Amino acid sequence: MDIQQYMQRLGEQARTASRAMARASSGDKDKALAAIATALRSHRSAVLQANQQDLDKGRESGLDAALLDRLELTPARFDAMVEGLEQIIGLADPVGVITDLAYRPSGIQVGKMRVPLGVIGIIYESRPNVTIDAAALCLKSGNAAILRGGSEAINANQAIAECIRVGLREAGLPDTAVQVVETTDRAAVGELITHPEYVDVIVPRGGKGLIERISNEARVPVIKHLDGNCHTYIDDQADITKAINVAYNAKTQRYGTCNTTETLLVANAIAQQVLPELAAKYRGAGVELRGCEQVRSIVEGIQEATEADWGEEYLAPILAVKLVKDMDEAIDHINRYSSGHTEAIVTENYTRARQFLTEVDSSSVMVNASTRFADGFEYGLGAEIGISTDKIHARGPVGLEGLTSQKWVVLGDGHIRQ
Amino acid sequence: MDIQQYMQRLGEQARTASRAMARASSGDKDKALAAIATALRSHRSAVLQANQQDLDKGRESGLDAALLDRLELTPARFDAMVEGLEQIIGLADPVGVITDLAYRPSGIQVGKMRVPLGVIGIIYESRPNVTIDAAALCLKSGNAAILRGGSEAINANQAIAECIRVGLREAGLPDTAVQVVETTDRAAVGELITHPEYVDVIVPRGGKGLIERISNEARVPVIKHLDGNCHTYIDDQADITKAINVAYNAKTQRYGTCNTTETLLVANAIAQQVLPELAAKYRGAGVELRGCEQVRSIVEGIQEATEADWGEEYLAPILAVKLVKDMDEAIDHINRYSSGHTEAIVTENYTRARQFLTEVDSSSVMVNASTRFADGFEYGLGAEIGISTDKIHARGPVGLEGLTSQKWVVLGDGHIRQ
Repeated sequence: MDIQQYMQRLGEQARTASRAMARASSGDKDKALAAIATALRSHRSAVLQANQQDLDKGRESGLDAALLDRLELTPARFDAMVEGLEQIIGLADPVGVITDLAYRPSGIQVGKMRVPLGVIGIIYESRPNVTIDAAALCLKSGNAAILRGGSEAINANQAIAECIRVGLREAGLPDTAVQVVETTDRAAVGELITHPEYVDVIVPRGGKGLIERISNEARVPVIKHLDGNCHTYIDDQADITKAINVAYNAKTQRYGTCNTTETLLVANAIAQQVLPELAAKYRGAGVELRGCEQVRSIVEGIQEATEADWGEEYLAPILAVKLVKDMDEAIDHINRYSSGHTEAIVTENYTRARQFLTEVDSSSVMVNASTRFADGFEYGLGAEIGISTDKIHARGPVGLEGLTSQKWVVLGDGHIRQ
Repeated sequence: MDIQQYMQRLGEQARTASRAMARASSGDKDKALAAIATALRSHRSAVLQANQQDLDKGRESGLDAALLDRLELTPARFDAMVEGLEQIIGLADPVGVITDLAYRPSGIQVGKMRVPLGVIGIIYESRPNVTIDAAALCLKSGNAAILRGGSEAINANQAIAECIRVGLREAGLPDTAVQVVETTDRAAVGELITHPEYVDVIVPRGGKGLIERISNEARVPVIKHLDGNCHTYIDDQADITKAINVAYNAKTQRYGTCNTTETLLVANAIAQQVLPELAAKYRGAGVELRGCEQVRSIVEGIQEATEADWGEEYLAPILAVKLVKDMDEAIDHINRYSSGHTEAIVTENYTRARQFLTEVDSSSVMVNASTRFADGFEYGLGAEIGISTDKIHARGPVGLEGLTSQKWVVLGDGHIRQ
């Protein structure tokens, strides 16, 4: 197969399909999503069997246990995938919404209409359920999609792609509106990310290595999510109980997620009241603490935190802890080491809460709440294609709206410019 | 001078200054703008003299008349520049505005706060007034700026830069918040557009060649404005008077602007009623018409429009004219040849107006209004840094809001995730 020609064909088909998708009614898009759900249910055994082939092949080629786990589509995961798809049917269609339509002194009416971006390229790794998730979000937001899943999931992804095509045809929409790349050749990714004439935006979903590689080589805008090195700062005017609960939850509620707190900052003046109890709770949960010198004089028997710890996204039961003089030092530390994902302050002081919200330069800033809340579902987006650590276009959790843009609409009655 | 080191120093200073600018109050930013205006007025003769040096040098080196005209800062243009600056003081500060703050089922309150982008790099050509215009918009929106003007305007730009520094210091803001590159070495541009650690977004203001070159080489997001190949479509259900007035204004009100109509599409069924009168008006204004075969059978003595004409941004008194079967053909033509800037339909038909607004994929779509209205001032933005033909981040006229982003704010009372 000539990869360049193949990807060009996919690109042209996607561009054409995107025009039809932009015009599709909410009803037709929902009908397609429902038909895809039905097709998935009736092809359940075929999809699970294809996934079994991927798993067998993965085991043969020596994939590690974590990767095999992510690759596996258990019956429960299959059902959750179809339910997730059906939830997207229930979300409001963002396309066509007109806002701020107002008269101008010239007499024209000017407003903004929400429109799809066009063609979205999604590059992801092993989980086959991302195929449905990404396809559904792109369809609902009126976009066409080109999906490039991990090579180890190729059989399940192709089986799922067939269900998507069946659903699209059933709703009278072009079955090229969602195309799953059929080759595992890595050159396909290179093509996908370098043709702005076919693809309007790339959303990579995967590890930091994948995302950095794509960002460096792309000629198409990338909505990227690098790491989540999140901070919780306990101010000296914090409520002790809230501080302990929030800081404990922010680290321990889940370890492998990007909104988990990785560094805890504590104001000197409150350290003696908070740290011993908090450290005991963390230890009870099996969390390894690494502290600055001052922390180690309060909490005994913990390792020293090095410079590398402040920049680390552990994704593990490890927490770096540092004492700071005051909030200004905490903000400086955060703006220096944070990846710009999510940071929280615990304080009862009104002025400091306001200042923290204003001065911390991250995609989510919180007062008296666990960083674990930084999530599209918790924020009410209904769904999430990823969490952007960029500033341009979309920042933080990206839902349907992040896959759209706005154009200007002008209504006149024969108005001419003077 | 080591360009790489020099630009790195500018980048570091801009990044540091951007933190102070993000925190600056509306009052301080307005104070700085007012102080810059005062400094400009008191350094009026020095700035005009520096501009005279540029003009003398330009004449010596044989710059053409059009370029020399753009380069010239006449007393009237100087005054207009200072007045433009003072108008920006009157605009609402977009920074810190919180929207959509609402309670979620978990009990947290979630909203969005508008924040500066950080450091904006602006690359422009000969007009020295862009230095003030760009600096003022960046300051008002809480950003730091690195400005890179044309080498032929270096003396005036440096004189203006000195006034900006005076104003910033007077308001107690860092005088590195706006830095005008002091070297004319082109390598400086290469450095400016390839360091995302120092620069958050690039706004090129200039010809298509400049913008394409920058877009191709940039490693930083670019808010770009390529060409403005705008269309007006006269539907067969148009009001004849409105059609003639709007189409005439859209071409002739100004020729050199990007929102001027370059191709006129006319429905077959109305061509005999509209074209003869409209063609006579265009001829009266000295506009050269180029038509498809059918147009040439109605309007005599005009040149044939070739394939190249449909894609051309003339920026001149030339208009391509084409007859189409119906609105669908008009929309197909537009979506194929347009640069995605601005398109208008003239019609009294409700359903077609709605369909045109929805299906035309351009940054501005209009009904019964001249394409010449596509402009930040006419849209009520108060000011304009450019017109984006991109879809990501900002589309159409870009004002202060286009130089900002939104972060999420979460307010809790000790909330933890379950």
